[in-house]
Amino acid sequence: MYPIDAPAPYPREQWYVAGTAQEFGREIVARQILGDPLVFYRTEAGEPVALWGLCPHRLMPFELGSLRDDEVVCGYHGFTFSAQGKCVSIPTSEQISPACRVRSYPLVERGPWVWIWMGEGAPDHDRLPDASDIGLGADPGEWRVDVTRTFDLQARAQLLIDNLMDLSHLAFVHVNSVGPAEIALLQPEITRDGDRLGVTRTTTDVPRDGFVTFLMPDAPDRIWSALVTDFYSPALINAGGPWVWGSTPDGARGEAVGKLNFIHAMTPAGPNRTHYFGVLTRNFRQDDDALSGMLSAQNDMVRDEDVTALEAIEKVVDRYGDIRREISVKPDAGALSVRRLIRKLILAETGGAGEDGASYERAPEPAAAQPSW
Amino acid sequence: MYPIDAPAPYPREQWYVAGTAQEFGREIVARQILGDPLVFYRTEAGEPVALWGLCPHRLMPFELGSLRDDEVVCGYHGFTFSAQGKCVSIPTSEQISPACRVRSYPLVERGPWVWIWMGEGAPDHDRLPDASDIGLGADPGEWRVDVTRTFDLQARAQLLIDNLMDLSHLAFVHVNSVGPAEIALLQPEITRDGDRLGVTRTTTDVPRDGFVTFLMPDAPDRIWSALVTDFYSPALINAGGPWVWGSTPDGARGEAVGKLNFIHAMTPAGPNRTHYFGVLTRNFRQDDDALSGMLSAQNDMVRDEDVTALEAIEKVVDRYGDIRREISVKPDAGALSVRRLIRKLILAETGGAGEDGASYERAPEPAAAQPSW
Amino acid sequence: MYPIDAPAPYPREQWYVAGTAQEFGREIVARQILGDPLVFYRTEAGEPVALWGLCPHRLMPFELGSLRDDEVVCGYHGFTFSAQGKCVSIPTSEQISPACRVRSYPLVERGPWVWIWMGEGAPDHDRLPDASDIGLGADPGEWRVDVTRTFDLQARAQLLIDNLMDLSHLAFVHVNSVGPAEIALLQPEITRDGDRLGVTRTTTDVPRDGFVTFLMPDAPDRIWSALVTDFYSPALINAGGPWVWGSTPDGARGEAVGKLNFIHAMTPAGPNRTHYFGVLTRNFRQDDDALSGMLSAQNDMVRDEDVTALEAIEKVVDRYGDIRREISVKPDAGALSVRRLIRKLILAETGGAGEDGASYERAPEPAAAQPSW
Repeated sequence: MYPIDAPAPYPREQWYVAGTAQEFGREIVARQILGDPLVFYRTEAGEPVALWGLCPHRLMPFELGSLRDDEVVCGYHGFTFSAQGKCVSIPTSEQISPACRVRSYPLVERGPWVWIWMGEGAPDHDRLPDASDIGLGADPGEWRVDVTRTFDLQARAQLLIDNLMDLSHLAFVHVNSVGPAEIALLQPEITRDGDRLGVTRTTTDVPRDGFVTFLMPDAPDRIWSALVTDFYSPALINAGGPWVWGSTPDGARGEAVGKLNFIHAMTPAGPNRTHYFGVLTRNFRQDDDALSGMLSAQNDMVRDEDVTALEAIEKVVDRYGDIRREISVKPDAGALSVRRLIRKLILAETGGAGEDGASYERAPEPAAAQPSW
Repeated sequence: MYPIDAPAPYPREQWYVAGTAQEFGREIVARQILGDPLVFYRTEAGEPVALWGLCPHRLMPFELGSLRDDEVVCGYHGFTFSAQGKCVSIPTSEQISPACRVRSYPLVERGPWVWIWMGEGAPDHDRLPDASDIGLGADPGEWRVDVTRTFDLQARAQLLIDNLMDLSHLAFVHVNSVGPAEIALLQPEITRDGDRLGVTRTTTDVPRDGFVTFLMPDAPDRIWSALVTDFYSPALINAGGPWVWGSTPDGARGEAVGKLNFIHAMTPAGPNRTHYFGVLTRNFRQDDDALSGMLSAQNDMVRDEDVTALEAIEKVVDRYGDIRREISVKPDAGALSVRRLIRKLILAETGGAGEDGASYERAPEPAAAQPSW
Repeated sequence: MYPIDAPAPYPREQWYVAGTAQEFGREIVARQILGDPLVFYRTEAGEPVALWGLCPHRLMPFELGSLRDDEVVCGYHGFTFSAQGKCVSIPTSEQISPACRVRSYPLVERGPWVWIWMGEGAPDHDRLPDASDIGLGADPGEWRVDVTRTFDLQARAQLLIDNLMDLSHLAFVHVNSVGPAEIALLQPEITRDGDRLGVTRTTTDVPRDGFVTFLMPDAPDRIWSALVTDFYSPALINAGGPWVWGSTPDGARGEAVGKLNFIHAMTPAGPNRTHYFGVLTRNFRQDDDALSGMLSAQNDMVRDEDVTALEAIEKVVDRYGDIRREISVKPDAGALSVRRLIRKLILAETGGAGEDGASYERAPEPAAAQPSW
């Protein structure tokens, strides 16, 4: 599926953001993730729970049911399930078949988000992206963390990943919301550390501009400034910037002044629809609520512009998208590396080989049926 | 197609309710039934007529045409057809090919409804469900008959049949509209008489409850009460209750007091959409219009709740429904028997054998083309 | 595809109307034609331009971009294309691959319309329909030309062609807007001159009727009158009438009085959707704006009635349309000839033979991908 030639649209053996911590409580919330119809709630003790969302009796969505203590009661015939997905009561039956259960999904609550493990088998906690360096650890430390709007993006997640991996679009898509962004047109440096991939554009020893002055009034007159994209996982990308350092008297990079991060989480609802979460973090003026409000409002505008562009592309891409005919240029290198990386993740799961060589087994439709356990 | 493994979604050699008697008159009414695009009207003498709804000349829907006496005039080029479907006039042609005709469907008007025979060949009048025992005969006799709302159910008819064959859902889906219904959670007795199948729950020699007192103030203090589902045909199910008898002094079932029936007709528009008709009958307080109004209003609420549940299931069932993985329990026995019965009807029509054994010829798409005659 | 059995839904080696001259200017207009996603604009010198509408970099629709002088700037990463479709600037790249281009479509502006050549290779100017005889030449001459409404017809173009080739429908579809039209029910004469095909109904030496009196008050008392359909190309049909001549004293056709033309251009957006353009021309009372206004308003009503009928047919035709079962009558001869003619055009393009004989290679999906060049 454009723009990745692989037997599945996205990897499943991953942690994805299921929602913000605030979204889940003592009401049943339904959300489709990677094609699976899920429901979320919290136990009375506050633990988040994710279950397959359809009753195994007659397929009634639990969304129309209710909570009783820590259990879900189906709204059709009253079948009741524990937070572990085990059927614990059938009003018309003494006996309960052990087959009467639904899948329970491992969750981890960390910082502003609840993450869900969508892989088969036990969760691989090493794969949970460690973004403590930008304030998303269990303890935010020196960082101010602001949750912004969630978008219901009617487009495949990979279009959003492509978008974020090439910030040269700032100068066009966002010219009305962020102003001219010459830095975005610089040739980037690409760095790689394991599966983490960075695309960095740096201006060295320049006079600080108006936006830096506004954000960091204490910054020195001459600065280094960076615009970064850090790919943490197929579920998490940080588009940071400006990151600001003072210049030393001889023009080298001096002391750090501050970092502003626009953090994006993309969770496929299905092949052509994506839950798009946003968080801003910064390590300066942490107590300034007005600044948080202003940056969040601007971020909503910026992401709205991306949503418009990506949804326009989604509408044509199934019919006209052909990876082999794509024209790519230098600044696409980061996005292309990430596509290759994600393709490798998918192929590792599906045992396939894709376009390069050997044939592969066609993967089952994502979540075409409730996985066996 | 879930929940019946058979080569067609429903049997065709059946009578279905085409509409209420009041719906059809001297205007052309279009309605899709079993995938066939039909039009209905009444002759000047009042006889209901059902014709294939598309002109064989250039496929114009007759719905956009008009009536001239007992004939339908196509709104495109004026081709005119008799109530028997024969082309009787072409404005630009003296000659009329005998091939210029449309199928005419046999109708029977009985009680509140007009029934249509959707089978090939001559109608089998023995298959018209005889529901005179609950007031739907040509003469209602001792019964008060009230027509309730028609729903355009966006779900397959079989989901509605499943629903009605297991009234334990009363205690959950309808808890807000009918209150707690302990009787619905009793183990039912299942009876079978030919193709008619009954599921009955009975409470024996109990004090009359508030609803019985409200309905039948003359009922004795101690009563027998029954909640019944009677499957008459794939097109007609009665969900009756309460049916009330007085207790004899020694607690046996005594004299009948009254019966209230909620009668449901389900007519597939196509594989995923159903015309859902309702009628209430009762053999007590027949002249009490206020009681009719109250019961009809409650019935509309109750059926609205079912429509919500069934449409939620329909949305997931194509993707996630798998009969072999369904968890069934004791009170599903009635519904499962009816599924088997309907499956046998479909297999008898299609000459197939389904999942159990021999292969079958794939049935043609229902009404993919106008049947030959 | 109904009603033509051929490997493609329409011929591509043709000129089609892309839009009215007024529609195109210094804003980018997106329009799908024959399945191709196109954009239109005018250069600063006023020349109309048509380009493939998706950026070859990452498929962004140019509709969301902007014009800079005579060039289109993609709204995503700023790739810029000349009016000839050549990429002339990439903000982040010095080098521009010659493969970085989009198809440019030949246009001809003539009279009220801009025509587009949708064929592969160089445009065949001989195929541009010459409709100067009804006022659509580069110079209208003696004709008054009025552009009427453009309809976004949700139906295949061939249904509209069928409709226009058999004007007997005037007496039914348009009975409310044009009144009784006995002339439309006469047997027509069919004439053929190359690929141009005429269907003419004539009344000879009759008293002039009310409508002729209204239109042409100077017409003699006895007239000849004609209702014509002239098929110019799969893109252009004139439904002219009345055309009026005076009778000679011995009842022969005398001097011409006037001609009124209802000219229809049908441009497939895709297989099931058509841009439907209208123009009225007449060679009498050319300066009478009130008459133009009245005729245009009536024409909008008439074409609205056709749109309603054709969209109703489109909804059923995929499921129920079967050319082999169609009932046709004498006045269908013109439409059937045109179907054969269009079928031959399609087969000549696709190298196929269709239903009559030899097998053919299945044509590629219309514009499934951007044509190579």
